[in-house]
Amino acid sequence: MLDLLTSHASVRKYKDEPISDETFHKMLHAAQHAASSNFAQAYSVIQVKDPVKRDKLAELSKNRKQYDSAALALVFCADLRRLGHAAALHGKKILGGTAENFLVAVIDTALFAQNFVVAAESRGYGICYIGGVRNNPEPISELLELPDLVIPLFGMTVGVPAEKNEVKPRLPIEAILHEDTYDENKYDKILKEYDSVMEEYYRNRSANSKSNGWTDVMAAFLSEPRRTFMLDFLQSKGFLKIE
Amino acid sequence: MLDLLTSHASVRKYKDEPISDETFHKMLHAAQHAASSNFAQAYSVIQVKDPVKRDKLAELSKNRKQYDSAALALVFCADLRRLGHAAALHGKKILGGTAENFLVAVIDTALFAQNFVVAAESRGYGICYIGGVRNNPEPISELLELPDLVIPLFGMTVGVPAEKNEVKPRLPIEAILHEDTYDENKYDKILKEYDSVMEEYYRNRSANSKSNGWTDVMAAFLSEPRRTFMLDFLQSKGFLKIE
Repeated sequence: MLDLLTSHASVRKYKDEPISDETFHKMLHAAQHAASSNFAQAYSVIQVKDPVKRDKLAELSKNRKQYDSAALALVFCADLRRLGHAAALHGKKILGGTAENFLVAVIDTALFAQNFVVAAESRGYGICYIGGVRNNPEPISELLELPDLVIPLFGMTVGVPAEKNEVKPRLPIEAILHEDTYDENKYDKILKEYDSVMEEYYRNRSANSKSNGWTDVMAAFLSEPRRTFMLDFLQSKGFLKIE
Repeated sequence: MLDLLTSHASVRKYKDEPISDETFHKMLHAAQHAASSNFAQAYSVIQVKDPVKRDKLAELSKNRKQYDSAALALVFCADLRRLGHAAALHGKKILGGTAENFLVAVIDTALFAQNFVVAAESRGYGICYIGGVRNNPEPISELLELPDLVIPLFGMTVGVPAEKNEVKPRLPIEAILHEDTYDENKYDKILKEYDSVMEEYYRNRSANSKSNGWTDVMAAFLSEPRRTFMLDFLQSKGFLKIE
């Protein structure tokens, strides 16, 4: 089982083999057994089957390659909307806009999604998370007719792998694990060593060989503004409002 | 494997059996292979060993029972701080305060945590997520000396189960799965049926039998203000700031 987890790498090209509804639903059902904050189950999945919508989704998320060949094209949504319906059955309204409830929905969705990934990979399928869905959350919300309090958090493609990336070396345990108190004094040394590991990995990998480490890529990734519309978008959908 | 996922239920009482560092680190290493947005790996785990700190954590998260008997007491943190160090090695600063980067860190942490749960459960351990860590995020941050851009997202206890809850029936697939467009018209019927299922479950379960459904519990849970300090707390740690 640990070997299965450790062998994860994104799959961006799939064989032309479908996944039956029965198999898909079995994997979803297993995934739903992830823990959920106060059992709110604050997530939804949109399965995009319509070829026109799928094409549009691929374009809007800037991930044409993945979506073109995948057996399943999914969008995972953080969802307080259904809970609003639950509350309305008792004449109540939910407080959608609090940061705490936003966290509940985002974390619930991510735990569920990762459980789904494990389910799918245990059956021999490959997957790719599509963070690119957050490049155009507003048009994608319109495309999928997502109401307030439902936001596309990430997409996912699933299918039988036609090719698979090599597994990337992760940060060493001591970088992510702290005992009793957070210790940042250790980072500079650890990160420089990790850069050497990643440089070797990037230089030697079979596809997209390049001469980067890790810290330089992260510095570039996180020092430039990205998706600066996100807070406005979230608030336009009813999340993260001051109540 | 699907059976393993489907058998998940929180464990709140553990046998007095330790988990070796070797085993813990193996499970963490496997967990790190969860996908990560642009490979940022924006998470940290604090393992709380010091009995005084552990006692304080149990009190602050209002989960004494879990923390008292668990082999491992963990706090999972969304962490952009380490990425700040990575950027500083290249004379750059990261944009910590954007909603997008906040999402990156929260989702990364949750995917990693859920992978860890699967790893632990595959080895026969039980776990319990402790959302209660968000009852007192500021004092817990002080206790664990978390700097800016590191926030305690949830805790977790891990150990050999002494008792285990029964598995709760999840929402039916059709409640969480939508085809091409989001369909909320179906909810009222589905949720009423689910209430019957949950009523039967709660009535018949061996511990904490009660006469609730699901929608009534959710209505109560989400219509009252909870953790209203959360947005202020997040912003005080450098997240979700208008840049």
